[in-house]
Amino acid sequence: MAGTQPARGTRDFLPDDIRRREYVVRIVREVYERYGFEPLETPAFENIETLLGKYGDEGNQLIFKILRRGEHEGKGDADLALRYDLTVPLARVVAQYQNELPRFFKRYQIQPVWRADRPARGRFREFYQCDIDAIGTTSATVEAELLAAVSDVLGRLGFEDFTIRLNDRRVLTALLESFGIPAPQHADTLVGIDKLDKIGSDGVRRELESRGVDATAVAACTGFFAGFPLRRDARADALASLSAQIGDAAAQPLSDLLALADRTAAGPRLLVDPSLARGLSYYTGAIMEIAVPDLAGSLGGGGRYDNLIGMFLGRDIPACGFSLGLERIIVVMTERHMFPARVSRGAADVMVVFLADQLRSEALALAAELRAQQLRVDVYPEAARKLEKPLKYAGSRQVPVMAIVGEDEWARGEVTVRDLQTREQQSPARSVAAMRIAEIVRLVPT
Amino acid sequence: MAGTQPARGTRDFLPDDIRRREYVVRIVREVYERYGFEPLETPAFENIETLLGKYGDEGNQLIFKILRRGEHEGKGDADLALRYDLTVPLARVVAQYQNELPRFFKRYQIQPVWRADRPARGRFREFYQCDIDAIGTTSATVEAELLAAVSDVLGRLGFEDFTIRLNDRRVLTALLESFGIPAPQHADTLVGIDKLDKIGSDGVRRELESRGVDATAVAACTGFFAGFPLRRDARADALASLSAQIGDAAAQPLSDLLALADRTAAGPRLLVDPSLARGLSYYTGAIMEIAVPDLAGSLGGGGRYDNLIGMFLGRDIPACGFSLGLERIIVVMTERHMFPARVSRGAADVMVVFLADQLRSEALALAAELRAQQLRVDVYPEAARKLEKPLKYAGSRQVPVMAIVGEDEWARGEVTVRDLQTREQQSPARSVAAMRIAEIVRLVPT
Repeated sequence: MAGTQPARGTRDFLPDDIRRREYVVRIVREVYERYGFEPLETPAFENIETLLGKYGDEGNQLIFKILRRGEHEGKGDADLALRYDLTVPLARVVAQYQNELPRFFKRYQIQPVWRADRPARGRFREFYQCDIDAIGTTSATVEAELLAAVSDVLGRLGFEDFTIRLNDRRVLTALLESFGIPAPQHADTLVGIDKLDKIGSDGVRRELESRGVDATAVAACTGFFAGFPLRRDARADALASLSAQIGDAAAQPLSDLLALADRTAAGPRLLVDPSLARGLSYYTGAIMEIAVPDLAGSLGGGGRYDNLIGMFLGRDIPACGFSLGLERIIVVMTERHMFPARVSRGAADVMVVFLADQLRSEALALAAELRAQQLRVDVYPEAARKLEKPLKYAGSRQVPVMAIVGEDEWARGEVTVRDLQTREQQSPARSVAAMRIAEIVRLVPT
Repeated sequence: MAGTQPARGTRDFLPDDIRRREYVVRIVREVYERYGFEPLETPAFENIETLLGKYGDEGNQLIFKILRRGEHEGKGDADLALRYDLTVPLARVVAQYQNELPRFFKRYQIQPVWRADRPARGRFREFYQCDIDAIGTTSATVEAELLAAVSDVLGRLGFEDFTIRLNDRRVLTALLESFGIPAPQHADTLVGIDKLDKIGSDGVRRELESRGVDATAVAACTGFFAGFPLRRDARADALASLSAQIGDAAAQPLSDLLALADRTAAGPRLLVDPSLARGLSYYTGAIMEIAVPDLAGSLGGGGRYDNLIGMFLGRDIPACGFSLGLERIIVVMTERHMFPARVSRGAADVMVVFLADQLRSEALALAAELRAQQLRVDVYPEAARKLEKPLKYAGSRQVPVMAIVGEDEWARGEVTVRDLQTREQQSPARSVAAMRIAEIVRLVPT
């Protein structure tokens, strides 16, 4: 007999999992649409040449490749590959529909991606990404709008303690130059700085020196970053330190964006953090990342990347995007009990039980009446001479009320309504049964 | 430069496509949950042995297989395969979680599946399936509930002219026996009968004779079916014909289900159709299919299949299910203009435009105010000295109103609001701008 587990690194999503994800996704969609972003979905697989060579050597090895079919199958060639992220498909869409898409293309996309990573706690081979991107302009208004939208999403989800760390790739470059670090060492240096909150100032110093960065430059670098991050309300000081180090003009992209975003929902959340690096090769301007206290890692991040979306067109197309860590958000919200009770309510509001086979169609008629009153109704499918099994089943599905169709009550035009928490029973007329049940369901703290 | 089309047989879903699908899916989910069904999702790929051998030779060849990774890649072996339908994953889930699932497991599942079919008009290699199944009981109440749920879904979607063709595999067997057709020829005969509405009575006769069915039996068969289908309101006659041919007892499963389903939402839709066959190998009891006038093929179908869901457990588990043709429903609804106007409304209700760079943050502040009033707001990201480009852009995104932030009006605490259909302009105070815009948006027949 074949094994029945899902494939390694993948998950079955049972009802409660899906309800939690749908709750988050609905809010994300509502907010993003209120910001004028539109949904896009692309196929699970792409022609293999669309994906290969786009994610570096390491990425290439993590791509799931699909065998050619039919007579070619024996050769072991692959012609298709599963989506590895949502950015390359977006770039393909921008190229394919360039004449149909609006001048500024603002899309969000919430779909699974697949990576043949070694599975680990919280790391899966199939997981959802939730991206929002604005294509076609270098205007910082889109950075500000993205920051506002993401803040609105997290606010609506109930996060009250998040910080948006803000930096700019151009500011970082100016900083490294000011420390006397030559351009060829910038990438290495940024990898080190990125670990500041993990390995501390001394750790960064050792790492940079081991990578051959000049000791004086390293001292200037760690000395400067020792003053950061400042608190959110010390923005002016943070910008002043930056200006003192690299000059007003070089700090301007960051101070401009800060001023712009300050009057949006993101305002109170913004933290100027020159040590934020975010895998730099990709980004060309503003970079941002969301931090929550007590949580290593982030709830999402993004920035401006002006040289990537045009990859299939052979020319640069400006773009700015943000990726919410959907799976992470769900984990944190679950741990913190942030989901409203209705998200984990049971499978139905009421279970209809009939006591004899000849009452089946009466039970179905009652179920239809109750559903017409907006109740979610399950029908225990088999005649129950005793209530033991239906009660157990109702418990397993977390159904709070039972409506029992028995011969005598039915003849009298009544239904027995049983509150499964209090075990109280009443026998209202059928015409008011839905109302009685609704009263109980609203009272039950599900 | 790589091609930028989606892989053969797959589609990119642009915003309007997604809005239409989401509209249908939301109604399906709402109705199915009102019937006590719960959502399930399974991974895109399964271990290859989970899928191989489950779909016959033809199916096996249509399965997309995924190459082993790393050092095994060169060998061309496959260890994973893309989901081919939603039934085998359901059977796996039933086996895997048998101790956690409720006694009767009622789930719906709406996810894409992948088949390496030759693409054709309306046939894709990636397409959505929308299944609902009740596992664990042989009670006909679940057939009746499925029929009711599906009828509710189609009613809520606006279908007013659909018919549910109803038959039973046991009735079919009794019929074929009554014609004198031996059991080994039943499968062939049913393939022929299934084509009745396509090739007519003479066509079926020729086909059956060519398959070696005895001429007298064929004559009995085509003679009987010539009397069908009767109209929906001639159910009693249909059942009487059946009873006359095979006896009351053999016709009982069908007459029982009809009586039971008659008092549900499905009642007025039901058509007794003994010629309905639906690829019989799979089904063991009731079978059903939805027909719409002017549409070849169906909007969905299903039935009881008591020997399949237990495939991974090595024992029979009763089950009854229905698969809505989601993609088909969307096509028909689009052709018939059945989607409400709001489904295809533009990307935003209003586009904020600012006339000079120094008004950027005022524009963002206005956008935030309008969004707080539930409006969907796009911001034209760049300062517009002339309105030509913003107007063109608003047109391409079907945005009906423009809110223009100019220096003078802003100083007076006003905003210019322009109705892009009538070209009328007004300059309300900012505090009432949202209300003015809402008035225009509600009036515009989007």
